[in-house]
Amino acid sequence: MSIFQRERLIRFSDCDPAGIVFYPQYFVMFNGLVEDWVEEGLGVGFRRLVIDRRIGLPTVRLEADFRAISRMGDRVLLALEVQRLGGRSIRLSSRCTGVDDGELRMQMRQVLVTTSLDTHQAIDVPDDLRAAIESLMGVKTSDERDAG
Amino acid sequence: MSIFQRERLIRFSDCDPAGIVFYPQYFVMFNGLVEDWVEEGLGVGFRRLVIDRRIGLPTVRLEADFRAISRMGDRVLLALEVQRLGGRSIRLSSRCTGVDDGELRMQMRQVLVTTSLDTHQAIDVPDDLRAAIESLMGVKTSDERDAG
Amino acid sequence: MSIFQRERLIRFSDCDPAGIVFYPQYFVMFNGLVEDWVEEGLGVGFRRLVIDRRIGLPTVRLEADFRAISRMGDRVLLALEVQRLGGRSIRLSSRCTGVDDGELRMQMRQVLVTTSLDTHQAIDVPDDLRAAIESLMGVKTSDERDAG
Amino acid sequence: MSIFQRERLIRFSDCDPAGIVFYPQYFVMFNGLVEDWVEEGLGVGFRRLVIDRRIGLPTVRLEADFRAISRMGDRVLLALEVQRLGGRSIRLSSRCTGVDDGELRMQMRQVLVTTSLDTHQAIDVPDDLRAAIESLMGVKTSDERDAG
Repeated sequence: MSIFQRERLIRFSDCDPAGIVFYPQYFVMFNGLVEDWVEEGLGVGFRRLVIDRRIGLPTVRLEADFRAISRMGDRVLLALEVQRLGGRSIRLSSRCTGVDDGELRMQMRQVLVTTSLDTHQAIDVPDDLRAAIESLMGVKTSDERDAG
Repeated sequence: MSIFQRERLIRFSDCDPAGIVFYPQYFVMFNGLVEDWVEEGLGVGFRRLVIDRRIGLPTVRLEADFRAISRMGDRVLLALEVQRLGGRSIRLSSRCTGVDDGELRMQMRQVLVTTSLDTHQAIDVPDDLRAAIESLMGVKTSDERDAG
Repeated sequence: MSIFQRERLIRFSDCDPAGIVFYPQYFVMFNGLVEDWVEEGLGVGFRRLVIDRRIGLPTVRLEADFRAISRMGDRVLLALEVQRLGGRSIRLSSRCTGVDDGELRMQMRQVLVTTSLDTHQAIDVPDDLRAAIESLMGVKTSDERDAG
Repeated sequence: MSIFQRERLIRFSDCDPAGIVFYPQYFVMFNGLVEDWVEEGLGVGFRRLVIDRRIGLPTVRLEADFRAISRMGDRVLLALEVQRLGGRSIRLSSRCTGVDDGELRMQMRQVLVTTSLDTHQAIDVPDDLRAAIESLMGVKTSDERDAG
């Protein structure tokens, strides 16, 4: 129920010679959604996180299904929700849906880890990020933390 | 054993503010590998396939694991092999490995379908593409074709 | 005075390992601004123009000055105005300015031509596009049309 | 005469819904050419320059003319030569030509400056870079250094 979502226009530069979204571009869009979610949804400054605090959020695993094409000029709804908050990881479920037709275009499950940008090693999810996820997304995680 | 592979340099433009490959860029790299495979490995002109014959090879599903980072200036080996050739689909297994250290950076499984670029509907894998895959990759598929 | 402008957030994916906007990305941003201008500023459907009417707006010349860096998380104002409307071309002047500091980051002059996407040859600026530019931008062009 | 050049294939991912190179992608290609030139042509490690020595080569000015389209599958020749070596800047002239037809596709003049990636301020062109440019490119610059 704690879904974070944003609309986005499919642009000329998102599309390939087939006239449809070039699939890696979906991941660029969802990367932007994660930025907005951290910044606006969680209230944890994304730029401060990455630049000042030197904490990264790389993807370590994803599964994606591409169900229908998106074309230039389409408005799509990008949505994400937390599936699981681990000790050093965040599992997200995301989807892209056409605004006009409600059609599911693409969905993915993705595991992000929090890392030190100095060592590129995983670190614990920072307390403020954890608290924001737990409170805003209504996730209870204290009993199910793991090392993942 | 029928692995198609190419070396590639990780460039400045592949990397993000964390100084490492921006993960959607792996999919751009592997998209290029599929182009080279169709063109050089299978001997089926990629440009003719897409432009003249209006046949696309969109990805409908993928699973990817990011195991280690790649940095600007790294030389990586991109490799793919066919896991299964369906009636309208090709399942690939791909991996990116560091040339100098042999370290596995990223691996993925990916299902491509052959589509008409006019309708964006799936069509049968064209005969020349099928024959080339069967012959070059040593895959026997006649008994196990499906609609997928 | 007839300036069309939009705000945009500088995203992680816009930036390079130096932590600042990778300069080709400015052109991607301005390409999006031209899309929005055609669609919203001029009221000529961009998707209809490109997809249905098969009319392109390629850049044939540009001059750009990069005056100051933009960083991830910056809000920038992208602005364009028409400098000259030719028979087959549109000359734009564009600039990117920091929202918070008013600092000029980048400016460019750019000549677009209208082309047939079937032949990639220049064609006359379509009447509706011409009328919209003349009316909305307050440009009088009838006496100064040229072949350019 | 001291031209540095590399061939490159125009890929699916370089092209837009019009089926031709999306123009910002030319700048990505030339950015790669500058990397190769610094690394292989000048023998100054590009990665070491940027990562270890924290020296950047941002573009501060460019002028580009797009003369003819490039399509997916085209092989193009990317070439650059030094026009002028300043105290803190390098002026390059670059061109993209079709390999098969010799047709000029795009040309540009570009001014790079050497900067500190810590301050993003211009710094003197490092001695090894300067010496390599002077020796390999046959450019005599000692009398005409400036602050630019």
